[in-house]
Amino acid sequence: MAEKVTKGLFITFEGPEGSGKSTQSRKMLEELSSKGYDCVHTREPGGTSVGKRIREVLLDKDEIKLSSSAELFLFEADRAQHVRNIIRPAMEEKRIVLCDRFNTATFAYQGYGLGVDMDLIKKIDDSATGGLKPDLTILFDIDVEIGISRATAGREADKMEKRGLEFHEKVREGYLKIAEEDPDRIKVIKVDGKIDQTFEEVKKEVYGLIDRYKRTG
Amino acid sequence: MAEKVTKGLFITFEGPEGSGKSTQSRKMLEELSSKGYDCVHTREPGGTSVGKRIREVLLDKDEIKLSSSAELFLFEADRAQHVRNIIRPAMEEKRIVLCDRFNTATFAYQGYGLGVDMDLIKKIDDSATGGLKPDLTILFDIDVEIGISRATAGREADKMEKRGLEFHEKVREGYLKIAEEDPDRIKVIKVDGKIDQTFEEVKKEVYGLIDRYKRTG
Repeated sequence: MAEKVTKGLFITFEGPEGSGKSTQSRKMLEELSSKGYDCVHTREPGGTSVGKRIREVLLDKDEIKLSSSAELFLFEADRAQHVRNIIRPAMEEKRIVLCDRFNTATFAYQGYGLGVDMDLIKKIDDSATGGLKPDLTILFDIDVEIGISRATAGREADKMEKRGLEFHEKVREGYLKIAEEDPDRIKVIKVDGKIDQTFEEVKKEVYGLIDRYKRTG
Repeated sequence: MAEKVTKGLFITFEGPEGSGKSTQSRKMLEELSSKGYDCVHTREPGGTSVGKRIREVLLDKDEIKLSSSAELFLFEADRAQHVRNIIRPAMEEKRIVLCDRFNTATFAYQGYGLGVDMDLIKKIDDSATGGLKPDLTILFDIDVEIGISRATAGREADKMEKRGLEFHEKVREGYLKIAEEDPDRIKVIKVDGKIDQTFEEVKKEVYGLIDRYKRTG
């Protein structure tokens, strides 16, 4: 018996480097798929064919430094394409979209982290999303130093990870401020390293949302 | 004896497809270089290493359709990087920068052509350019149908050229409106197909600017 929801649900997973977003969002995909829900797992940047090329420019280890504006515009170009080609069509099919990073990351990284004008980000982001907002955002919070060392264990750091601790502290603080301003949508989960325990908290939040829109049939 | 200018000069070449911008701007580069001026010839999109990758996404013949917002953001990302890494440094060295397309193209193509909100474009563009304005913009005006057939003679049309005549008519009209609003900076040159005759008009405008800032030494 397949479980269904009465409208498309859009759930985003956010957090600093090494906070376990990708692991948790993929576990949630398995969990929901095993229950028969129609799900889409996607990510930013890089959720579309154009986005994959943009992602390479954004995270390329050897690429010359991007200006803050160029970085912001590339993330938003990726998002505009992603919303139009992946997220909105899936929502229209009443699927559950699980997205590894979305616009909260832009406010945290380019706004709080790089200091790009928030009003400018908001205007551009509204144009990219067409006003689409996540139904639920799970924000994984982790000590910055622990997160970076977890993220880069056994591989070279990408461009975002290579920015110093001070940058990543600003990003984390930004994330927490944004969460405080929107507590109904953004649920903060403190990460202490135990994947299964964290996952129990993720499931609680996700099923809390799904139960409001569930239809068995 | 090398000719010099007392400040960096920024000259942009604009116009619809097939209007001869690239030919004329390169001829101007040869002309000024032969006189001993320090010049830089560059273009948008694609004037930087990041920009070349963005250009491929924007103009790729086989790429899936970009949303209007994504297209705007990619052009502006290219511009932000271009201004910071190429144009501003050359201006600081008191060079003459000859640029094949700049922000007037964005207002004409994405604003008048695609209908993206002009106020949004202006905000994003101000962030990308940091307020840098061309000292002189030469706008080549050509009948749209003639231009497209000239541009695509002997090769496959790129994504921008493939948009219908109606789109390109809007772009042309947009260019002419923008020129009307800023006649001191934007000089319209009607293209009738005779390269050398057009070039005489280009030289007249460019030397008109240079003579104001010339220093022999």
